[in-house]
Amino acid sequence: MENPGYCAGSFDHLHHPSDDDDDDDEMVDIAGATLDFSSTDDVPPLSTGTNGGYEENSSNSSSSSSSSRAAGMNGNGPKLVDPLEDPLPGVGTYEDFNTIDWVREKSKDRDRHREITNKSRQSTVALLHSVSDAFSGWLLMLLVGLMSGALAGGIDIAAHWLTDMKGGVCLIGFWFNHEHCCWTSNETTFQERDRCPQWQSWAELITGTSEGAFAYIVNYLMYIFWALLFAFLAVTLVRAFAPYACGSGIPEIKTILSGFIIRGYLGKWTLIIKTITLVLAVSSGLSLGKEGPLVHVACCCANILCHLFTKYRKNEAKRREVLSAAAAVGVSVAFGAPIGGVLFSLEEVSYYFPLKTLWRSFFAALVAAFTLRSINPFGNSRLVLFYVEFHAPWHLVELAPFILLGIFGGLWGALFIRANIAWCRRRKTTRLGHYPVIEVLVVAALTAVVAYPNSYTRMSGAELISELFNDCSLLDSSQLCGYKQPTNTSETGAGNSLADRPAGEGLYTALWQLALALVFKMLITVITFGMKVPSGLFIPSMAVGAIAGRLLGVGMEQLAYYNHDWFIFKGWCSPGADCITPGLYAMVGAAACLGGVTRMTVSLVVIMFELTGGLEYIVPLMAATMTSKWVADAFGREGIYEAHIRLNGYPFLEPKEEFEHSSLAVDVMRPRRVDPALAVLTQDGMTIGEVETLVESTHYSGFPVVVSQESQRLVGFVLRRDLLISIDNARKRQDGVVSASRVVFTEHSPSQPPDAPPPLRLRGIMDLSPFTVTDHTPMDITVDIFRKLGLRQCLVTHNGRLLGIITKKDILKHMAQIANRDPDSILFN
Amino acid sequence: MENPGYCAGSFDHLHHPSDDDDDDDEMVDIAGATLDFSSTDDVPPLSTGTNGGYEENSSNSSSSSSSSRAAGMNGNGPKLVDPLEDPLPGVGTYEDFNTIDWVREKSKDRDRHREITNKSRQSTVALLHSVSDAFSGWLLMLLVGLMSGALAGGIDIAAHWLTDMKGGVCLIGFWFNHEHCCWTSNETTFQERDRCPQWQSWAELITGTSEGAFAYIVNYLMYIFWALLFAFLAVTLVRAFAPYACGSGIPEIKTILSGFIIRGYLGKWTLIIKTITLVLAVSSGLSLGKEGPLVHVACCCANILCHLFTKYRKNEAKRREVLSAAAAVGVSVAFGAPIGGVLFSLEEVSYYFPLKTLWRSFFAALVAAFTLRSINPFGNSRLVLFYVEFHAPWHLVELAPFILLGIFGGLWGALFIRANIAWCRRRKTTRLGHYPVIEVLVVAALTAVVAYPNSYTRMSGAELISELFNDCSLLDSSQLCGYKQPTNTSETGAGNSLADRPAGEGLYTALWQLALALVFKMLITVITFGMKVPSGLFIPSMAVGAIAGRLLGVGMEQLAYYNHDWFIFKGWCSPGADCITPGLYAMVGAAACLGGVTRMTVSLVVIMFELTGGLEYIVPLMAATMTSKWVADAFGREGIYEAHIRLNGYPFLEPKEEFEHSSLAVDVMRPRRVDPALAVLTQDGMTIGEVETLVESTHYSGFPVVVSQESQRLVGFVLRRDLLISIDNARKRQDGVVSASRVVFTEHSPSQPPDAPPPLRLRGIMDLSPFTVTDHTPMDITVDIFRKLGLRQCLVTHNGRLLGIITKKDILKHMAQIANRDPDSILFN
Repeated sequence: MENPGYCAGSFDHLHHPSDDDDDDDEMVDIAGATLDFSSTDDVPPLSTGTNGGYEENSSNSSSSSSSSRAAGMNGNGPKLVDPLEDPLPGVGTYEDFNTIDWVREKSKDRDRHREITNKSRQSTVALLHSVSDAFSGWLLMLLVGLMSGALAGGIDIAAHWLTDMKGGVCLIGFWFNHEHCCWTSNETTFQERDRCPQWQSWAELITGTSEGAFAYIVNYLMYIFWALLFAFLAVTLVRAFAPYACGSGIPEIKTILSGFIIRGYLGKWTLIIKTITLVLAVSSGLSLGKEGPLVHVACCCANILCHLFTKYRKNEAKRREVLSAAAAVGVSVAFGAPIGGVLFSLEEVSYYFPLKTLWRSFFAALVAAFTLRSINPFGNSRLVLFYVEFHAPWHLVELAPFILLGIFGGLWGALFIRANIAWCRRRKTTRLGHYPVIEVLVVAALTAVVAYPNSYTRMSGAELISELFNDCSLLDSSQLCGYKQPTNTSETGAGNSLADRPAGEGLYTALWQLALALVFKMLITVITFGMKVPSGLFIPSMAVGAIAGRLLGVGMEQLAYYNHDWFIFKGWCSPGADCITPGLYAMVGAAACLGGVTRMTVSLVVIMFELTGGLEYIVPLMAATMTSKWVADAFGREGIYEAHIRLNGYPFLEPKEEFEHSSLAVDVMRPRRVDPALAVLTQDGMTIGEVETLVESTHYSGFPVVVSQESQRLVGFVLRRDLLISIDNARKRQDGVVSASRVVFTEHSPSQPPDAPPPLRLRGIMDLSPFTVTDHTPMDITVDIFRKLGLRQCLVTHNGRLLGIITKKDILKHMAQIANRDPDSILFN
Repeated sequence: MENPGYCAGSFDHLHHPSDDDDDDDEMVDIAGATLDFSSTDDVPPLSTGTNGGYEENSSNSSSSSSSSRAAGMNGNGPKLVDPLEDPLPGVGTYEDFNTIDWVREKSKDRDRHREITNKSRQSTVALLHSVSDAFSGWLLMLLVGLMSGALAGGIDIAAHWLTDMKGGVCLIGFWFNHEHCCWTSNETTFQERDRCPQWQSWAELITGTSEGAFAYIVNYLMYIFWALLFAFLAVTLVRAFAPYACGSGIPEIKTILSGFIIRGYLGKWTLIIKTITLVLAVSSGLSLGKEGPLVHVACCCANILCHLFTKYRKNEAKRREVLSAAAAVGVSVAFGAPIGGVLFSLEEVSYYFPLKTLWRSFFAALVAAFTLRSINPFGNSRLVLFYVEFHAPWHLVELAPFILLGIFGGLWGALFIRANIAWCRRRKTTRLGHYPVIEVLVVAALTAVVAYPNSYTRMSGAELISELFNDCSLLDSSQLCGYKQPTNTSETGAGNSLADRPAGEGLYTALWQLALALVFKMLITVITFGMKVPSGLFIPSMAVGAIAGRLLGVGMEQLAYYNHDWFIFKGWCSPGADCITPGLYAMVGAAACLGGVTRMTVSLVVIMFELTGGLEYIVPLMAATMTSKWVADAFGREGIYEAHIRLNGYPFLEPKEEFEHSSLAVDVMRPRRVDPALAVLTQDGMTIGEVETLVESTHYSGFPVVVSQESQRLVGFVLRRDLLISIDNARKRQDGVVSASRVVFTEHSPSQPPDAPPPLRLRGIMDLSPFTVTDHTPMDITVDIFRKLGLRQCLVTHNGRLLGIITKKDILKHMAQIANRDPDSILFN
């Protein structure tokens, strides 16, 4: 427990992470979060694993390279205090809940690489080091794939076992799930085997009989009991040990990948607790899935494994490359779709995704998928979660119902996002948010009570989807395949076992149950997503779509069966032909609903393609996904993840949206015309005392350095944190540093009166290449620069004179203002 | 023939495109190409289709928006001459062989979009216009997909027909190919059907017999005759009508997508000639493929169709998004692999690939693939070019030969690139380049003479690969499946028809022929690629790899058959089991060789995955591709396309390579310390005469505007072309503009003596937001900025004063210098 702050804290920490809750206004100040130097929690960003990274750094400076551009003079002689020659611990690192500087991080990594390459020409050991450095990325990917695959397999097995536990227990050993328990049973058919004597329902165990109303009630109550127990354990564990383990994690991971720092979010404790509580939450029967949280789990694995390699431990940008790959791994193990996973990471999660990462992600995703398959949690040697095989092609006329499903998916997506965000906002702002455990228990109880009587809601979401996707063969005994058997085989076209048939009674019952399940799932998912348990949205969304699709599919099938002489069916749907596949409709519906909620496009289609394995069905999927996205976008352009990011006030600059307004940089920059002038340092005119006064009287996280107050010609930019650490350190260790000492940022010390104290040279901590734009730069270009280069701030000049500064937060506030939202909803910098 | 310069010119035009061949030094001047205002060839960049785009522009300015930021005052009243209010024709466009300014283009598009959105609130017509504008991208994608799919189908059919023409003719009608000719034949087996009486070889037709030495010689000669005829037609057509139609086109398309302008490269004539000559070149039996050129064909289609939509016709950046999608379409129709095509475009071809383009590319690729399938050129309803279905899984031990194939592929790739580049350089620099027709004829004759006797070289590359990929079943009659039939079925494991069998005589013959074909293909491809005919590299590379793989596969199979008690085969390769699949080896070898030559990674694996349709075989493919890339990269990091880009001196800033050197911006910028000072304009201190003198005395393509010569504080940047056009126009149309008129770039005219001529206000053509970096910016960051933002030039400042300028060409020259190459090899700006 490196980060006791998160684990012992209240849940409010998640949304108000500053230590002093009342001081939020301080944090929404122009350019910065408050700095808290009393905190000793100075572990490297995103890291919770190895402590004392900096001790290691200073004792082993040949392998460290946090600022190797000046590292040529490192590691010999007594400790130098001039920060130009020896980087101080803490200089160049980041505060929690701050944005990283991509340009600086990537430049640091290139310096490191250059140093290693140069050294590799000198000795064999250095050459080996260089080679191992080059391959460490691949090794890391391999480890991430193996670990994530193994964890996903474990989660699958455990969730399967606990889900079955709600229904009964295995007499041979309680650790067997229903299927494994009956594995050795002598019964031949699958259905009989399910009722093997080794597996006893709770009613059988307690009352001795599995028939009758009393047994039903006992089973019902036991089901509710287990559901409540699992839910209670899940929420308590999350609350006690790792508040960051709740939710799907994808909004936060998107934010982290865009360059934000949330320490501990991808730490050891989050991983352990998320893994355990995910199993519990899924088993409790709540309307949630494990697919989204698996992305979080994979990212935690990647972040923890990053600590094994200096290259990734020390560099925030490099680490984010690994996390992007880990997101691909997460989806790869969730669905068994490696290519879809990579595209998901590219399309939905990642911010900066170089081609090198693409290739490595693909490798890691494959390793993970094959690791998972060798664990074989589904017991069927299949790589994919829902294996489907359709036999009939689709017809062009069917595009109409597919597009209808797309419209349904889009509407449901837009509606769900609105309802869920409204509910989450209510949770944040009212007393509801203070009772997370009770909330979870109430929802779990409600879910269990309503779900048990209906077999389609009682089964887990994944099972339900699997059954809905399935194509009915003649021998299929499931209720969904309760068609009337053709009495006259000659009439129905000589033994086409998959031909369309009239619906029987079983099917009508199933349809009613499905319709009820649809309504229930739609309502309960809205209040479930966002509770303080790990909860994914993929499975519930897909379930809603699959039910709707199956209903429409069966409807179309019956329509075609009874009216095959209608002109729309003529020519392709003769009697006895297998013209409509309801399973395909379910699949298309699932894609449409998932698309409406998440606004995924290519990755969604590719994941679905990997499930079916045939290009044949891509067109229906694509038609539905496109329609769904267009319809949903008409109601609001944000997907559920972006909506949650905005709800939480994270500083996320959406890379997909164009900035549409025609404002100029001068309209967005601070200071405004009415504000006092920009706080700047001069390159050689200020004393330590003056600098400290300036720093303390403002909250800016950095200060431009100019030639002189009069000329306002820009020299560089220095970060508040680096400045304070350096001055602090100089006062402690350097002789003669007093408040009257001059702070100089120039290359050569200026001439001083002989009795003056020696100047403090701080050129080493100054960024000599700050980004500037002119005041006339249109904001669309500025936003583009921020996005593409990953900037934190950018200085604004007019005819060569410094005029102001634009931070990422300023841009986000400006965008919020344009969209008529509260600009103060952007909390972090 | 809009561009007679290309079509009538000599082949030197392709590599020395400046009109005055002796004046190349002028072109490699510091910051620019020479401007030639005498040229009236002022069609929009990349366009050869519709002429008079500008007339349209000025007469219909409500739909035009080339500079709509100032468009509020457009389109009413008499023609205003102040360029601030009305963009002059030509201002904001580009010269041929110049680099576009991505930032400006994208900003222009956002302005246009903003204008349409604002207008859409005013009237229903404008709303409809806005909606149609939003969907025009999708419509364009649909059209590109349809057109490319149809063209690819046509090319396939025509190439098939002409290829068969070399062997014989159909008596029912000469327009039938061999297969269609024998379609109605009564023979039942495929082999018999191939020898149907309707199809007559040339020997049969001429001598009346198909047996004997004489008939063989007649067929041989006819084969050579047709090969020479097709090759001659191809090279003559290319030479006469569209020199840009030669080669694979991918290097140039990469360069164009990175922001370069090569007018006519994607024009109507190139499309027509490339389509025709591609068929001829493929049919001539030369060692080349049609897959790479199909990318060029698809891009031509896209470029031509762009003219239908103002949004894409007028904007270079938007058009490049469409071209990126078209590259995906090209690969999609070439292999029938839409996902692989999109990833190919993303990984290999594109420079700027936003997510929106990803989704649209995918759509277009699917449309194209299904269009092609509905044309059904292969007659088998398959989407993919090489449909393979393997039956046996692979074993972990087999990874060793797969990696061996990877090493072979990498070595071959590296060797091929070196040899081919050396040969192409020789062609450029010696007299060889002056006789392209003779060269093609000699190579075609050589190919035909050597290829005919060997059945594996006689068949087309695609057929060969298809046969090598194929798994042998018991009934297979091909020579490659000439195994000894198992005499004792009980011994070989009871009827496993695919079990490993000992090689028979037929197979040994086949192996010898294959080995000879391998050597021949390896040698002839080196001199074929780069000739003045359309030539793709995918098929020849894959053929080399497939042959090597099949040889190794058969070797492994026999090894396993005769030594199944060796410990490496123990446990998985018992007698009678189908443990080694030589077809899979061929596939892995093909991937390895293609990977070695092109350095594709993910896209290659995904294309291969789409061919097999099973994730099962991804691991071998990945292992071989990774090994191949690593081995090839050890010899040189450039793929064949990058090598050709460099050979031709195109200004291409490789997005995959990191800039490793530690130089600073000040080391790269011009002017150097010894050079005269930077040529700048002052914002209000110069007369037209002075400006013209300055412009004429230099070759720079743009000039910074400063407050005054003394302060050197930057105001903006103005392009040479815009400046000259504006001054020229003002002199013609504006009264009182004389050489003594002052040129002012300020917002308000400065006070002037009352008798002075009225000043010429040019603020409208000045870029008010030029990019600047400081002199201390490391070059790695500068290169990153250039790449990510797509800059043409960037100004360098020191403490707020303008110091110099860095252009893309300066960077490329600097990189060439670091790599010990000739910096003057970078020809264009």
